[in-house]
Amino acid sequence: MTPAGLFVSFEGIDGSGKSTQARRLAEVLRAMGHEVVLTREPGGSPGAEEIRALVLQGDPDRWSAETELLLFTAARRDHLERTIRPALAAGKIVLCDRFADSTRMYQGLSRGDLRASVDALHALVIGQEPDLTLLIDMDPAAALSRAKARATVEERFEDFGQDLQDRMRAGFLALAQEFPDRIRVIDGTRDETAVAADVMATVSAALPVGAIT
Amino acid sequence: MTPAGLFVSFEGIDGSGKSTQARRLAEVLRAMGHEVVLTREPGGSPGAEEIRALVLQGDPDRWSAETELLLFTAARRDHLERTIRPALAAGKIVLCDRFADSTRMYQGLSRGDLRASVDALHALVIGQEPDLTLLIDMDPAAALSRAKARATVEERFEDFGQDLQDRMRAGFLALAQEFPDRIRVIDGTRDETAVAADVMATVSAALPVGAIT
Repeated sequence: MTPAGLFVSFEGIDGSGKSTQARRLAEVLRAMGHEVVLTREPGGSPGAEEIRALVLQGDPDRWSAETELLLFTAARRDHLERTIRPALAAGKIVLCDRFADSTRMYQGLSRGDLRASVDALHALVIGQEPDLTLLIDMDPAAALSRAKARATVEERFEDFGQDLQDRMRAGFLALAQEFPDRIRVIDGTRDETAVAADVMATVSAALPVGAIT
Repeated sequence: MTPAGLFVSFEGIDGSGKSTQARRLAEVLRAMGHEVVLTREPGGSPGAEEIRALVLQGDPDRWSAETELLLFTAARRDHLERTIRPALAAGKIVLCDRFADSTRMYQGLSRGDLRASVDALHALVIGQEPDLTLLIDMDPAAALSRAKARATVEERFEDFGQDLQDRMRAGFLALAQEFPDRIRVIDGTRDETAVAADVMATVSAALPVGAIT
């Protein structure tokens, strides 16, 4: 019998520390003996990374919100087929930095009012949610200063200003109410180690019984 | 008042001569004084051409049928927004070498049984059909020898063998019955000039009254 895998996504506004927390959790779980696949979206498989580059590089207006949504959904389909589902089938723990909730927010809310299209596309060609989603919630002003402190060539989604970040934070919190069984809100304003302990406690409760040896 | 444009697509199996016929028709219409945009799919706009390259180059199995469908639909959305709709709004005649019917055939029939997904995606994010579609119909054996005589780096869709071409021809003819108001079947087995005369007569009947000066 194939052991059951676990699919955990990390969500939150830019600078919330979700990537750092995903990395830290991967280290701890590996130290405990789990097989962990740490991945991210957009991207996460060779094909999806090529699509990511196509979308994120160049003029921010080169793609309409609708075309961008289709490209990111294509990338997610590839990522699911080539990386996530094979890992879950092999009983591994998949930690994914952003997944469909980010599309619900960024393409569904910030670039246009496309939430209905986002949901229809998801139902049509993705149809999979994480077992558990950790929403790292924090004050947008603090998150923005963290994001700006990082150097990155992919600045499109990190240069929206605080008004949009405020809307994003509110949107993510509304998503947590929309999917209460799946999304857990983690207070990201505390120091990194305290947040990591909270993340670990939340994930431990979701691990298959007997999986920790 | 903006003059009404006309959107004509050319469809058919590989080697049927549809690209040649589209070019010839463009020349004749331009000589008559019409403004003509000759374009093709996949591709037809700078962004869509980049997506085309991503899909058609490399290992034929690098994308699943579903991912390929999403990428081609993204390319079509970009092509519509950036090339086709602006040209139609300016009263031009758009001649497009392949459009959504090719997706109904290639992704909907030959790479998988995805027709329902193809139609759902089309309704969701494309929602536009040509005013007129010319299906250049011919014997697959003759079409295949024509296709093989051409040198191309994008051989994926032209190397399927005659069995598949037979299925494609039957599928295109079934589409013509599904969309009888839009699709006209042109016998492509005759010599190029005879086919061109037939194409021109069919398109002339669809031109806006008074458009030919």
